Amino acid sequence: MASLLSDLRRTHYTKNINSNSVGNEITIMGWVHEIRDLGGIIFVLIRDREGRIQITAPTKHVDQEVLDTIRKLRKESVVSVKGKVQDAGKAPNGVEIIPTEIIILNEANQPLPMDPTDKVKAEIDTRLDSRFIDLRRENITAIFKIKSQILHSTRDFFQNNGFMEINTPKLVASATEGGTELFPITYFEREAFLGQSPQLYKQMMMAAGFDKVYEIAQIFRAEEHDTLRHLNEAISIDMEASFLDDKDVMDILEKLINKVIYDVIDTENHSLEILDSKLELCGCPFPVVKYDEAVDIINSKGVEMEWGDDLSRAAEKALGEVYDNFYFLTDWPTEIKPFYVMPNEKDPTISHAFDLMYKNLEISSGAMRVHQHDLLVEKISEKGLNPDSFGSYLKSFDYGMPPHSGWGVGADRLTMVLTGVNNIREAVLFPRDRRRLTP
Amino acid sequence: MASLLSDLRRTHYTKNINSNSVGNEITIMGWVHEIRDLGGIIFVLIRDREGRIQITAPTKHVDQEVLDTIRKLRKESVVSVKGKVQDAGKAPNGVEIIPTEIIILNEANQPLPMDPTDKVKAEIDTRLDSRFIDLRRENITAIFKIKSQILHSTRDFFQNNGFMEINTPKLVASATEGGTELFPITYFEREAFLGQSPQLYKQMMMAAGFDKVYEIAQIFRAEEHDTLRHLNEAISIDMEASFLDDKDVMDILEKLINKVIYDVIDTENHSLEILDSKLELCGCPFPVVKYDEAVDIINSKGVEMEWGDDLSRAAEKALGEVYDNFYFLTDWPTEIKPFYVMPNEKDPTISHAFDLMYKNLEISSGAMRVHQHDLLVEKISEKGLNPDSFGSYLKSFDYGMPPHSGWGVGADRLTMVLTGVNNIREAVLFPRDRRRLTP
Repeated sequence: MASLLSDLRRTHYTKNINSNSVGNEITIMGWVHEIRDLGGIIFVLIRDREGRIQITAPTKHVDQEVLDTIRKLRKESVVSVKGKVQDAGKAPNGVEIIPTEIIILNEANQPLPMDPTDKVKAEIDTRLDSRFIDLRRENITAIFKIKSQILHSTRDFFQNNGFMEINTPKLVASATEGGTELFPITYFEREAFLGQSPQLYKQMMMAAGFDKVYEIAQIFRAEEHDTLRHLNEAISIDMEASFLDDKDVMDILEKLINKVIYDVIDTENHSLEILDSKLELCGCPFPVVKYDEAVDIINSKGVEMEWGDDLSRAAEKALGEVYDNFYFLTDWPTEIKPFYVMPNEKDPTISHAFDLMYKNLEISSGAMRVHQHDLLVEKISEKGLNPDSFGSYLKSFDYGMPPHSGWGVGADRLTMVLTGVNNIREAVLFPRDRRRLTP
Repeated sequence: MASLLSDLRRTHYTKNINSNSVGNEITIMGWVHEIRDLGGIIFVLIRDREGRIQITAPTKHVDQEVLDTIRKLRKESVVSVKGKVQDAGKAPNGVEIIPTEIIILNEANQPLPMDPTDKVKAEIDTRLDSRFIDLRRENITAIFKIKSQILHSTRDFFQNNGFMEINTPKLVASATEGGTELFPITYFEREAFLGQSPQLYKQMMMAAGFDKVYEIAQIFRAEEHDTLRHLNEAISIDMEASFLDDKDVMDILEKLINKVIYDVIDTENHSLEILDSKLELCGCPFPVVKYDEAVDIINSKGVEMEWGDDLSRAAEKALGEVYDNFYFLTDWPTEIKPFYVMPNEKDPTISHAFDLMYKNLEISSGAMRVHQHDLLVEKISEKGLNPDSFGSYLKSFDYGMPPHSGWGVGADRLTMVLTGVNNIREAVLFPRDRRRLTP
């Protein structure tokens, strides 16, 4: 070979070859998905990211060299196929390719560590161990096509609504929210931590006058959870906006969710079909359930809960039986929310915090924030934290901090909802939990 | 107050108030930028993210309550101003506001930790210590408006060219490229590391058949540098694509740079003006300089360099004297490039690696990658690394890895280039270097 691909280039993705291509010479590149040798005729299915196409080699009408290559093909080897497109009623897309040149670009060893077709069902751990093969399955690829679209639509929404993208540091000197669930790092001669949330930084950007900001980035939580809804590394969609209250940013969140669903239906309809997911635009506005009402509903379902408790898993499930789509939970007790949440001005025991739920799954938490320096110091102390360890954060409240509100959405959880998978590991390429750090 | 903002909402950003608004009642919210009390008339400049506007209060024609509030105003306090727009030849935008209501939303303490106007020049360290005030200056805000646009244009480019966005893990079990410059983390009972690059993961996504992928995310390098071009936490724009060689992805990179410049000129012209940056579309194609030629040029400039050396800072500067825009450096010696770089098929001492330079600054590194399992094992060993510690990476080369190529662009460095700043700390909201972990 003169160069490693030489002049060989793909002309089409498989999905773009159809009856309009009949008679044309095309080149495709992809994986050997299936081989059926019927003696007088050999069928090979070639797969790429966008679909599959049938190569048809009638032994009498195809070059000997091509036939020799076809007979050596192994499943999952990577090939380039040049050929002529012709009508074929029974084949996918109604067309097939009569090959004039087949080049094996890289061979696949046998046996494969897992079956890339759906014929053999594998456990999630086996699949994650060979994730690169698992991801070749069209129903797994579909999840990540949708996730890519969710992230893109989200950024479009922010960009079209006057938000600036920011990048806040993930290496931090101390605990963001005073929690203990932080991963410690050795940062040269000292200890640092991995950011568990951009919370304090996005608030400081309000003091910087950036007005409306968003960030989509990794967050890290050293929680010892072992559930279908938690990972130790996750993608968080965060926004913060000045001169707005909790109701305003709930409105923004509702509009975002509907825009994302609209775009996913519009651009990833085929992926939704593969996943058998019937996504629909949600009714607006989303139902708003006050914490008090939620407690009543939960108790009425036979799950014990007292006013002031956070929602247990059983409580979330009880609520999810009643609300089967997106809904807001509002008017939370101040005591179970973080220090930066604004208390209600009439009754400070309840707060301007809200959660967005989908059935029994928490998708987002948000609030109007405390913007008054002295109240913030007070609330940090009340949580048993030391205001001195919040030095540069608190300083930004002392010299012109506007009223502001914001929320964070778990991007992986939102992907679960829109793709219909029920283990968060299905919505993350290479999930990280307490037991898993590879691949 | 009934609610914390009550019914008070901004109707306009300052920049949107102009001669068309004359006679209208508007509400703005922002920071007190300047106060001039001339006795019979008081002028207050209000600043928001988008600009400034003049509030004009003739003492005889304005409510006493409004006057009392104006006289209490402190610089950098946050206010809401309701009033009527009227023509004013000398004021910015040609209009001014006669106030009917002024509410102080949050007071600024005095003295401020730094001067938010440009009148007093502060050192970078002083500025970073009070970054939230530093960022209020329009020439600093401008840098981050441009950075936000760079990131958005980049994603648009990828999305419009068939790339899928991916999120790869930042918590990794072992060294990505075998380097020693990793930050160790305590991950529950064991040691892990922070990802220094998504390199191995984006390559594994090629084995997964994702064809074309991109990721914009944090990278972490425990380098002890103290330069104007390095930070320990940075944003990397990464892409990888199957069935393409180094020339193809250089072409993609060139198109991306031009699209980003086009968009920045188009949408952030005002920010460019503030920064006095004369950005122009680059000529296409970018000049291509072979490593051999570069060595000659560098030596001819009196900087000693031998074939096989990496570029010293002095060497980069010598090159930058000759090439004063973007250019590619190609045909690098294989030995000074990472193990995953494809050697030239005719002369394996040179490689399919390239760098994108802007004057004397490296913006991007890329290459066609080795896709053959056995060659990769060989090259890992040659670098003195143990192939066993690359288990799941190497496995993905054994079962159908397509030929592929890719690159990474330093987003912070690209921001330096397009905004004309010469310290990378200017292009990062909260920079992290060996000495700085706060704010």
